[in-house]
Amino acid sequence: MGNNNEGKRVKVMKKMDQQKTPIYSRLKAHWETDPVSGHVPGHKYGRVLPEKGQAFFRDILKIDATEISGLDDLHSPEEMIKEGQELVSDLYGSDASFFLVNGSTVGNLAMILSVCSRGDRVLVQRNCHKSVLNGLELAGAEPVFLSCGYDPMMEVSTSVELDELDEALKTIEDVQAVILTNPNYYGLSIDLKAIIERVHEAGIPVLVDEAHGAHFVLGSPFPVSALELGADVVVHSAHKTLPAMTMGSFLHIKGSLVSRERIAYYLRMLQSSSPSYPIMASLDLARSYIAALSKEEIDAIAKETAKIRRELDMLDGIRVVVPENKSIAVDPLKVVIRSTSGRSGFELQRDLEREGVFSELADAWNVLIVLPLAVMDAKHDMIERIERALQENAGGTTDRRYTRQGGVPLFPKKISQLAIQLDQQQELPSMECKLEDAIGRVAAESVVPYPPGIPVLLKGERVTEEVVEYLGELTRLGARFQGNERMKSNYISIYKEVKE
Amino acid sequence: MGNNNEGKRVKVMKKMDQQKTPIYSRLKAHWETDPVSGHVPGHKYGRVLPEKGQAFFRDILKIDATEISGLDDLHSPEEMIKEGQELVSDLYGSDASFFLVNGSTVGNLAMILSVCSRGDRVLVQRNCHKSVLNGLELAGAEPVFLSCGYDPMMEVSTSVELDELDEALKTIEDVQAVILTNPNYYGLSIDLKAIIERVHEAGIPVLVDEAHGAHFVLGSPFPVSALELGADVVVHSAHKTLPAMTMGSFLHIKGSLVSRERIAYYLRMLQSSSPSYPIMASLDLARSYIAALSKEEIDAIAKETAKIRRELDMLDGIRVVVPENKSIAVDPLKVVIRSTSGRSGFELQRDLEREGVFSELADAWNVLIVLPLAVMDAKHDMIERIERALQENAGGTTDRRYTRQGGVPLFPKKISQLAIQLDQQQELPSMECKLEDAIGRVAAESVVPYPPGIPVLLKGERVTEEVVEYLGELTRLGARFQGNERMKSNYISIYKEVKE
Repeated sequence: MGNNNEGKRVKVMKKMDQQKTPIYSRLKAHWETDPVSGHVPGHKYGRVLPEKGQAFFRDILKIDATEISGLDDLHSPEEMIKEGQELVSDLYGSDASFFLVNGSTVGNLAMILSVCSRGDRVLVQRNCHKSVLNGLELAGAEPVFLSCGYDPMMEVSTSVELDELDEALKTIEDVQAVILTNPNYYGLSIDLKAIIERVHEAGIPVLVDEAHGAHFVLGSPFPVSALELGADVVVHSAHKTLPAMTMGSFLHIKGSLVSRERIAYYLRMLQSSSPSYPIMASLDLARSYIAALSKEEIDAIAKETAKIRRELDMLDGIRVVVPENKSIAVDPLKVVIRSTSGRSGFELQRDLEREGVFSELADAWNVLIVLPLAVMDAKHDMIERIERALQENAGGTTDRRYTRQGGVPLFPKKISQLAIQLDQQQELPSMECKLEDAIGRVAAESVVPYPPGIPVLLKGERVTEEVVEYLGELTRLGARFQGNERMKSNYISIYKEVKE
Repeated sequence: MGNNNEGKRVKVMKKMDQQKTPIYSRLKAHWETDPVSGHVPGHKYGRVLPEKGQAFFRDILKIDATEISGLDDLHSPEEMIKEGQELVSDLYGSDASFFLVNGSTVGNLAMILSVCSRGDRVLVQRNCHKSVLNGLELAGAEPVFLSCGYDPMMEVSTSVELDELDEALKTIEDVQAVILTNPNYYGLSIDLKAIIERVHEAGIPVLVDEAHGAHFVLGSPFPVSALELGADVVVHSAHKTLPAMTMGSFLHIKGSLVSRERIAYYLRMLQSSSPSYPIMASLDLARSYIAALSKEEIDAIAKETAKIRRELDMLDGIRVVVPENKSIAVDPLKVVIRSTSGRSGFELQRDLEREGVFSELADAWNVLIVLPLAVMDAKHDMIERIERALQENAGGTTDRRYTRQGGVPLFPKKISQLAIQLDQQQELPSMECKLEDAIGRVAAESVVPYPPGIPVLLKGERVTEEVVEYLGELTRLGARFQGNERMKSNYISIYKEVKE
């Protein structure tokens, strides 16, 4: 037996191991011993519960246990949870993987707190998730913002660009980490290989919010995962695309730039001391689900998603939109549609809901649909319902807020630092003023016009003449401002401090 | 109709309202419309799921939804979640109540971050939950530790004492908050009325970790809740004693000393941006459960728990222990037993487990059993199983670590500040040394001998001669050290810094 067979035998063992579900199985076995609960939670495996809740809760509560003998402890795993996490690590090719029960949110907070001390400088893209900014605020770190790319076809922001990252690494001193978000919400994914290599050349860890990419480990047709490209920490919302319960996520570590102990320390700090066993068991099951998918099954899913895209694109009243930039990979599970009859994205979303089709999100023009990681009969139903929805709604828009699609000028790229750091902002009083009077002042709120859906101003950034002119132009083009109605009247919130 | 009837009508309306379950009912109604999920989570209401998980997960996943139209948003509640929280607030008599999906842990973190800025001084008891210390570390606050009481009969730590609190308020300047934990894990509760009044006289908010007291709102025979006595923020682990899913908790605010907006800000920061709808629905159901309990039903539960205590106390081989101090209230749901045949608490716990009775926790002598907030047939089963367990195990101990029960000297009370603050500790290198060589050095680990189960040294406190002598005496008496085996060999971890 040569090396080849050794490799094969290890692969076979791993495949069989991957069908195990140590957490789920142990919980089930415990329940089947008919235990008496003299412990929390108060429902006592579902025996104490209002009658009305029985139908939905009765079964899950049988495994809603706590840290008793044999059920291990997420915060100090030695038995079934350790085993479950090792199976995840094995599947994803990480050096260590952690179950998260408080979403990718806690993964992002922990990875940032683990790497950043107070005052540390960190490169981060402007369009990152709020939890990244929150992690930086908790850590007292100082973000240096990189512009993000923009796809004019889909009118959504994409990701960091290598040339600007390179410039930042050359001009900004003492960068302690680079934090990326990839793919974006719409499933658009850039190739991070060159970026990760460039950052590693500088000896800096790469932390990636890959919340929407827990299934990328399956390989083609899915985009490549940052973990495979050498990122140091990668966070996955398992619940978004895998069959795990909401809040179930993963954090993976690779290499030695980031301390496993510090990650574990902050996860213990930021997650309940009574983590949910149903959520952990669902992570176990979700991992076994994708590990069990054969190449044929993955191909079938790929064909199915492609078929759905074609069928949707052929319906009268909508078209499927893809990025203009062909180097951007599109997650097959994410389908973005637009009305061809003038309906805004929000109107289109509501049209679909009237037929019982609920989409993931809508913006001024787009509606995002997340497809299942499976071949399902329900697909036919969805397409028929969408077709009905389109027929019911004659088209045209009553949504006079949006004047036209496309053609929005991009804000000039720039590397930006905050005039007032995140952890200094909360205590400061703020006031409102007219946009033109705000030049030179520090924004007390983020301003995110759509399109392009990229923050033009971040809370704590100084307002420049350039920004004011750009916002004026967008307003004339009919851009909307997320969560900020007063921008229509040209008001902005600024911090009260000495004008420079 | 006079004022009396008006009051009665409002009460009747509230009682009817309290049977509502806006979150649970809406989720159920949504499911029943047979919606098509074009959104996360990836299990698509349970349609994508490994076969083996169907039995336990199939039903709960039908309500494992996300923030789509009509399902509100925990982080910006306006519809069903707002209504659900208002019902909680109404029942508990708070000014505002929040659902928590990340345990009392996140409630403690949020209340501390809301009230404490970096460098703020806070009075806190030595035996607080780890999440309180973590909150202080994240906030960069400086704890001033108060001793906690001790019950020599049960050999467990209790709570803060008024005279020492008073001394601290007189001698420590600029105290920004007082953080209390009541009841303790064993259900022992002190009357906080005088303490809360004293702290309020000084214009300082009282923050209470009442994790084990979510059911105190039911009134007698349960201890009085801190919320009723005027505490400013109270955190409840609904999942511990009410029929809610693990991680489901409440945070209540009362009065105007603590900002509702700041609490909401930190809860948004520290909880997943995709909070679990099943957990929220279970909180809704749990609230309706206790709201629906009539006086007769509560009396029946009181009688039941008293009966169980009597029956357990009569069994050969164990006795029920209660505090020596009669002013300490005991939660009827918490029964603490001890072996009368020399078995240690850990051995007794394992004896019970061999008959399928799982207790909440064990220490050197005690075993804590948490009873259900209901009258259940299963009670008989538990007592029979415990009786069998006691018969099976002849008594005597093989656990030679504990020499005797009782008689442990209490550490002299003292108000203590840290030599190295919580948020300065992580970066510092530490080393090991013999205890006697550590005098004057700063402890890099907490030392908690049992008995008495009170931290004799907290991480960051200076080691004194008094402490070293006391630890020596405890070691001779056979005390054990939680999580610190090296103490047996007389080693302690200290920070490397200049000796004073």
